[in-house]
Amino acid sequence: MNNETDRVYRACLIIIGNEILSGRTQDANLAFLGEQLNEIGICLDEVRVIPDVPKRIISTVNEVRRNFDYVFTTGGIGPTHDDITSQCVAEAFAVDLILHPDAYKAMVDFYGTEKLNDARLRMAHVPDGATLIENDISIAPGYRIENVFVMAGVPKIMQSMFFKLAPTLTGGKPVLSQTLSSGAKEGDIAQGLGEIQYAFKGVDIGSYPFMGRGGTGVRIVMRSSDEVSLGKCVLRVSELLNQYVK
Amino acid sequence: MNNETDRVYRACLIIIGNEILSGRTQDANLAFLGEQLNEIGICLDEVRVIPDVPKRIISTVNEVRRNFDYVFTTGGIGPTHDDITSQCVAEAFAVDLILHPDAYKAMVDFYGTEKLNDARLRMAHVPDGATLIENDISIAPGYRIENVFVMAGVPKIMQSMFFKLAPTLTGGKPVLSQTLSSGAKEGDIAQGLGEIQYAFKGVDIGSYPFMGRGGTGVRIVMRSSDEVSLGKCVLRVSELLNQYVK
Repeated sequence: MNNETDRVYRACLIIIGNEILSGRTQDANLAFLGEQLNEIGICLDEVRVIPDVPKRIISTVNEVRRNFDYVFTTGGIGPTHDDITSQCVAEAFAVDLILHPDAYKAMVDFYGTEKLNDARLRMAHVPDGATLIENDISIAPGYRIENVFVMAGVPKIMQSMFFKLAPTLTGGKPVLSQTLSSGAKEGDIAQGLGEIQYAFKGVDIGSYPFMGRGGTGVRIVMRSSDEVSLGKCVLRVSELLNQYVK
Repeated sequence: MNNETDRVYRACLIIIGNEILSGRTQDANLAFLGEQLNEIGICLDEVRVIPDVPKRIISTVNEVRRNFDYVFTTGGIGPTHDDITSQCVAEAFAVDLILHPDAYKAMVDFYGTEKLNDARLRMAHVPDGATLIENDISIAPGYRIENVFVMAGVPKIMQSMFFKLAPTLTGGKPVLSQTLSSGAKEGDIAQGLGEIQYAFKGVDIGSYPFMGRGGTGVRIVMRSSDEVSLGKCVLRVSELLNQYVK
């Protein structure tokens, strides 16, 4: 991975799948990708969850690939009728969907010619010009075409693909993060916190109230790529919270 | 709630919050809203997760409120400096942010004039023309302006707000759902499943492979607002799966 210093690299994740929108399946790829990208200096800056509808996939891919440095998609690259991501990505790039020789060979080696039916062969098709992304869990690959990375929806497979492709990404300075939790009330600390944010413009201060079994309170998350400023900010916020603890 | 029959009502959820994008906080509102909306005949058709950046919030609200029947937002309506949703929604609608008399009265009653500082007063401000959405957990309200429903990010508060506003929504026929799980391989059942999908055009058949402690397999989810077709489809899929169980 190459690190350039001052540029911020922004990524968009497209989660393709009716099962996420219906609430039946809880997505696990967003949180994984948000954390992993941050570690290599790339900011996950938007996520879209869209249904398995060709025109929606095509228009979303085309809109976001122009506005973000990197686009990741999850879901819809399996063998069944509802796996339509690859056709849509090919259409978005106005290229043909082709049988990739390396993916074909890997599948022949794995399944043998008898079990390699038409459905499984679909998984060896990629948009013309795409580079394969392998994974250690399944034989079907993901792929990269320009700045778009097409990955599986199953979290274990998606994660394996991500670890393969991550070294090829260029990122900026990783953002460091510090979190302080407190039983203080947001309404009490809000003014002081706003003053600290004003004083530390290079630190992004977020305030997140929580309610759980351990009671109610607030988590203050401070993020910056400047470790010195971040340390000073943590000190100020810490002083503030101490004034309001019950 | 009024039910019209043939129209499909589509909703978009905007999740506002850096903490979700960073992967630190796992969103819980998407799955809740997807399930609840489905029960009242509204299809959650897109979700966008965006950062706490005014121009992004304003442009996203304005884009999606024209394209969906209902827009829900979560997050950013608390008392701290990073709670900027209400200013942005007001700007999106080109109206002023005003102190809502009912919200103000509720907050005076709750906090008394001494504890009701400027930070807390921010939570009584809504875009001009908005109708309050109360909740049973906190005193700060959400609100509705035209087809946009602005709710808290804390799941318990968001859920309470949703249950208050749900009776005011118009939906279509609720979509019924049936799920069959199997140890069959997706690549084996894909062709047969595609044929069943072709025969049952009114049923949306999704195939979702899983990998977990209980082994690998596939979940077939069938959705339709037509109970009779759905039942017949379940029977066909069930026959198919039985052929391929190990």
